Amino acid sequence: MADGREIIYYDLPPAPPRAAVDSRDLPLLSVSSELRYNRLLSSWVMYASHRQDRSYLPAQEDCPLCPSRPGHPTEIPEDSYQVVVFENRFPALVHSPAGAGASAGGGTTPGGGGGAVPGPGGGAGAQGLLEGRGSAGRCEVVCYTDDHSASFADLSPQRVDLVISALVDRTQDLLELPGVEQVYCFENRGREIGVTQPHPHGQIYAYPFVTPRTQKMLAAAEEYKRACGGNLFDDQLGAEQEAGTRVIVATANWTAFVPHASRWPYEVHCYPNTRVPDLASLPGAARAELPDVLLDIFGRFARLFDTPAPYISGWHQAPRGRGSEEMALHLEMLTFRRANDKLKYLAGSESGMDAFANDILPEVAAERLRAVGTAGTPGP
Amino acid sequence: MADGREIIYYDLPPAPPRAAVDSRDLPLLSVSSELRYNRLLSSWVMYASHRQDRSYLPAQEDCPLCPSRPGHPTEIPEDSYQVVVFENRFPALVHSPAGAGASAGGGTTPGGGGGAVPGPGGGAGAQGLLEGRGSAGRCEVVCYTDDHSASFADLSPQRVDLVISALVDRTQDLLELPGVEQVYCFENRGREIGVTQPHPHGQIYAYPFVTPRTQKMLAAAEEYKRACGGNLFDDQLGAEQEAGTRVIVATANWTAFVPHASRWPYEVHCYPNTRVPDLASLPGAARAELPDVLLDIFGRFARLFDTPAPYISGWHQAPRGRGSEEMALHLEMLTFRRANDKLKYLAGSESGMDAFANDILPEVAAERLRAVGTAGTPGP
Repeated sequence: MADGREIIYYDLPPAPPRAAVDSRDLPLLSVSSELRYNRLLSSWVMYASHRQDRSYLPAQEDCPLCPSRPGHPTEIPEDSYQVVVFENRFPALVHSPAGAGASAGGGTTPGGGGGAVPGPGGGAGAQGLLEGRGSAGRCEVVCYTDDHSASFADLSPQRVDLVISALVDRTQDLLELPGVEQVYCFENRGREIGVTQPHPHGQIYAYPFVTPRTQKMLAAAEEYKRACGGNLFDDQLGAEQEAGTRVIVATANWTAFVPHASRWPYEVHCYPNTRVPDLASLPGAARAELPDVLLDIFGRFARLFDTPAPYISGWHQAPRGRGSEEMALHLEMLTFRRANDKLKYLAGSESGMDAFANDILPEVAAERLRAVGTAGTPGP
Repeated sequence: MADGREIIYYDLPPAPPRAAVDSRDLPLLSVSSELRYNRLLSSWVMYASHRQDRSYLPAQEDCPLCPSRPGHPTEIPEDSYQVVVFENRFPALVHSPAGAGASAGGGTTPGGGGGAVPGPGGGAGAQGLLEGRGSAGRCEVVCYTDDHSASFADLSPQRVDLVISALVDRTQDLLELPGVEQVYCFENRGREIGVTQPHPHGQIYAYPFVTPRTQKMLAAAEEYKRACGGNLFDDQLGAEQEAGTRVIVATANWTAFVPHASRWPYEVHCYPNTRVPDLASLPGAARAELPDVLLDIFGRFARLFDTPAPYISGWHQAPRGRGSEEMALHLEMLTFRRANDKLKYLAGSESGMDAFANDILPEVAAERLRAVGTAGTPGP
């Protein structure tokens, strides 16, 4: 791209040539990103002040994620595309030599290198309480289609398959970057969640640390293993399958359910029936079934209300060199819309105390998600 | 109140008689609340389906938090009031004999009683993965003034003092309820945060468990003590005071600052200079200074943008019988507004991975909060 960012096309064969040149006069990408460790919350916070001025809900003719047209160059130089991935122009994380250097060494436990907690052991008293470092990560955009008005739920199974292939490819590539500890592929959809571009797209964050959520899950799994001997993800999936009351989709290779203790009005977790640590490790049969399973779930969220529900969906995968023994690949999808005209807000109890109150019982949410499943549900 | 809820008036002397009768024909309060344990996230989730239909942004003449007028009975039977506290009609938590019984026994560690984690040790394999129990808690509303159009920042120091006295009193009373483990006094303000009643008021949640946030802070403090020998809160406050670059308010007894690794666009933490575990333990001098300090901070949030910033503010206090050795009473106040016309949304990275990206550096936020401090700032 004109400012030095990388762009990668994914096409079904026969792949067209992708030689179009980015004709824009963009300044070289110059962003600064910083990490600071919040010791009270045991987590890193990312700072990216250049994001403050990013564009917000441009008119369709100015959409930067549509293909380029004569006189209207966009982020994608080609005049059409299937799936395309490129570096975010307003990234929360950047990969800089300084950042990579500061975090080289691997490991994310206290005293380790990359993503390391500034050790309380590293200094006496107040030493190390105000630590930060350069960033070492990358943020990418994944455009699903050149059709501006489509959504993930509208894609063909073949296109969804291509998107998944792109996510597998990018996950593996990004984990090779020095300093990167974890890759998160996700999608924000809907104006209510603050999406700045309505064009159908997902995002990939390559974090230079293991995220707090993943650390929490892995700690819970380790504790469970010590106490019960089994795998927490396996046993939880088995318990949901046995109960059945919250299951939304059950195929030969996948199970999607509203978790017993879901935190959001409508929340679905989707697991392969046989545990794997990441998308790349899915066996052929599960991989082949995945596009239909995803379209089924996303379709239900699209039909839940008068208008398609805003949502966040994301793939949980094992971080680099950690947790592949215990971690279970799964998708989590949620909407914070709780009725046609009502949203769930994260107010005092949630934002201040991490204590979630949910107005909709998981069984009620599951019943509604099952009820809206008929139209367009693909066969097994 | 007509439906059996409790209401408590707080008045400066000479206290007027408070004998007005609730004339409304309200059905007896019948709500169900349930707790479920999310083992993957090691936290309880509260379910309260009766909240789904609570009133939303009523017109001022229908405000249920204004005093009653002839023909317009409200939640407060009197025709005027100073500070009044009553049970929330749409509570996320209720106190029921069943709930209290289920959680009696105290302690919140695995295998304990109240707020206990359903022990993985309690059953083999998938046993205990789908556990829940009745609730044992209480939600209260704190009206600051009978002036519908005021805000906390508009109150007189005397009124703020009365509000604090009410919070001290309610905290102590609620911790006496069987099953209650922690009391959280907070305020949500602004339509953007989903506030359903614009009348100036705060809330009190009496949780039947120690919240995830408090557990995290106490664990961090314990780890810090093991490694460094000091108190994490003390050392962090000292480090912020020494650095000075993020300090907003510094008086003889209080320090307010934007934390080194803040997660929100504008976030202020306010600590007494000498650590105490809760509001009730504040020494006289610190207690006397608190109203002016709070009015200073809240005033800055009110002047930060074209219109008063929406905010969440909350008091962190030690839970019952736990953490009073390490825990530091403090107020946390935040706004998710990042510019006059822009909000910070918790999208994929935050909601999915608990990994926060912040567009505004803490030093920049501190500088802006300092700059808007002159108008109406009380003297020390």
